[in-house]
Amino acid sequence: MTKISPLAPANFPELPIIDGVQFATASAGVKYPGRTDVMLAAIAPGATIAGVFTRSATRAASVLDCQEKIGGDISKGAAILVNSGNANAFTGAAGKASVDRICAAVADRLNIPAEAVFTSSTGVIGEVLPDHKITDCLDQLTASLSPATQEDAARAIMTTDTFPKGASRTLHINGRPVTISGFAKGSGMIAPDMATMLVYIFTDAKISQPNLQTMLGSLTNQTFNCITVDSDTSTSDALICAANGTSGVDVTQNQEFTEGLKQVMLDLAHQVVQDGEGATKFLTVEVTGARNEADARKVAMSIANSPLVKTAVAGEDPNWGRIVMAVGKSGAAADRDRLSIWFGPHLVAENGWVASSYTEEAGASYMQQAKLHIRTDLGVGTAQTTVWTCDLTHGYIKINADYRS
Amino acid sequence: MTKISPLAPANFPELPIIDGVQFATASAGVKYPGRTDVMLAAIAPGATIAGVFTRSATRAASVLDCQEKIGGDISKGAAILVNSGNANAFTGAAGKASVDRICAAVADRLNIPAEAVFTSSTGVIGEVLPDHKITDCLDQLTASLSPATQEDAARAIMTTDTFPKGASRTLHINGRPVTISGFAKGSGMIAPDMATMLVYIFTDAKISQPNLQTMLGSLTNQTFNCITVDSDTSTSDALICAANGTSGVDVTQNQEFTEGLKQVMLDLAHQVVQDGEGATKFLTVEVTGARNEADARKVAMSIANSPLVKTAVAGEDPNWGRIVMAVGKSGAAADRDRLSIWFGPHLVAENGWVASSYTEEAGASYMQQAKLHIRTDLGVGTAQTTVWTCDLTHGYIKINADYRS
Repeated sequence: MTKISPLAPANFPELPIIDGVQFATASAGVKYPGRTDVMLAAIAPGATIAGVFTRSATRAASVLDCQEKIGGDISKGAAILVNSGNANAFTGAAGKASVDRICAAVADRLNIPAEAVFTSSTGVIGEVLPDHKITDCLDQLTASLSPATQEDAARAIMTTDTFPKGASRTLHINGRPVTISGFAKGSGMIAPDMATMLVYIFTDAKISQPNLQTMLGSLTNQTFNCITVDSDTSTSDALICAANGTSGVDVTQNQEFTEGLKQVMLDLAHQVVQDGEGATKFLTVEVTGARNEADARKVAMSIANSPLVKTAVAGEDPNWGRIVMAVGKSGAAADRDRLSIWFGPHLVAENGWVASSYTEEAGASYMQQAKLHIRTDLGVGTAQTTVWTCDLTHGYIKINADYRS
Repeated sequence: MTKISPLAPANFPELPIIDGVQFATASAGVKYPGRTDVMLAAIAPGATIAGVFTRSATRAASVLDCQEKIGGDISKGAAILVNSGNANAFTGAAGKASVDRICAAVADRLNIPAEAVFTSSTGVIGEVLPDHKITDCLDQLTASLSPATQEDAARAIMTTDTFPKGASRTLHINGRPVTISGFAKGSGMIAPDMATMLVYIFTDAKISQPNLQTMLGSLTNQTFNCITVDSDTSTSDALICAANGTSGVDVTQNQEFTEGLKQVMLDLAHQVVQDGEGATKFLTVEVTGARNEADARKVAMSIANSPLVKTAVAGEDPNWGRIVMAVGKSGAAADRDRLSIWFGPHLVAENGWVASSYTEEAGASYMQQAKLHIRTDLGVGTAQTTVWTCDLTHGYIKINADYRS
């Protein structure tokens, strides 16, 4: 039994029901014994669906299939089927055939076109997916569809995750309630590029597919694309958002809805970092004073992905020299003598040297907290960014030196 | 006492004496008790000196000073002084003042200009260098200069290294012997950018400074710039090569000498990887069939720096799916269905899928070796490259979560 991350929330949140969206789970035995590993979501006619996917050059068959289908006709309803334990990635022609068989079988059961079925697979890369084990469960899945089983759905898609991840917001727009609810999985191989891990978000808001797609892409850059666990990018990252309009509230270009959706996405993104493989610390990396946004991101990711920074955080060592190193290697414009560094409220370094007010004791004491904030001001401009990561511990090595065997 | 790397050579090699180059070491007590931590090399008049240095934006005071001096007048002789335990990096104006004081003191003792004194400092970043401890040792150092103490010199510059690193080649050019001898330190914070760690190479070959500089830059790109331990780039990387011409053999544009120097540099570079922090495996990453050299390097470094590839190697897990992942995230042109992967002699994957001849047993058995070779053919061109790295183990975490405290 894997120990639950020390950074996990106390409970899975109470996720509100979204009218017209139902879930079911089953134990297909794709890889893991004694747990659920398939999730089906059925979406009633009238919804719009947007999706953002990994840009990996070796992306999985299911990702390629989803990318082709997003924006197509789902007027008769749609479905999302996800399995864990096998990523169906780098499985050649067999991979595509598996996706096609699953989509056809789901379409047949739900009486919708195969073009309205979206699949994701997550787990080991390079092994053929035993798709018959999944399709054999379809009768059970369709018979048990229910609007209230999102926690079960979140659990069924877990791989090395130590806790299921859910988030929701209920907004009041023009005096009427609008609900956003979603869940995610992800723990390792986390350095999203355009999308991340597996994330499914549902809302009863009313919005056209192109508008939802634009909003989702933009928000992804501010949320999931700002986290990293280990700098490794999955072959299977997928984020799908379905808006079915049952609230009757049109949210096209609505700032309140955009902010609400962003909050749900950020909440899920943070939970993914908090379940980073072996993580014991949640680290917010803020970079200010950069020449431009691209430089701010370069420096933030250089700090967040540095094994030496991440091991220092794991060891509760206020080793700000490693922050200096990570700034130096980032390739961004920086001037050693204009650099300032803060650990939480403590100004650690300024003007190219340790700050006169800083004490090692203050730094060491601060580093003992589970949630840390490191800010670096480059002093060469006004651009800024924030990214989130976790520490690098023995737990990460333990999980990944013995994942497949 | 740190355990010596399992990948260490059996012995420090017998390094040949280079006429006109002398070494001395001392225990200045900069940081480490009970060991030598300062190395002085004195180079007789008539030599040429070339150097390659880190491009980090936060490079150390000694690196900036060396960069200014390389190519200047050393007709009265030259000196190299190196300390371990303190990198004198990110130490503001105090850092530059320390370098100036050390150079002036060395120049005074050896009766050469301060412009002919090159210094390096390696160790903790962000602490002021107690340079008086170093200059206090200069009488002892100059009194004990000897041509035969290169192993002592190699030991004095070690930080987290578990063994001293030396290499040499004796060539016969136009019937006359030419000797190249060098030593290096480096173990963590190893992802060189234009140079690497600390490396000092001496030869009795005769060659002009501009020609030696060009040769050194070119060979660095084929050797030290092709290794990575942890993707982190030091603030202090420096490679200095002195050629004093005492052999009487002019090696300008001599292929044999170029190859001999490359072999010494490659030997030292491989030893740095073999002493990578926590390393138990030495991994050669070969990429062939790339669209161009830049793509080949992108893929090779993406594989060599991937925490998931490195932990799989540590766990002796033939997890080729992680190679596919690293190819996919690299940003290089790749086609999943034209990719081939070999573990040593075993063809693992081809045509976008596991090879029919491959067995998990063969892969698992191969991975037990200490020296591994992973080749990836992208199948989209003819460019190729090779880089070298080590695995990522509990040892790395242990060393770096508790380095400074």
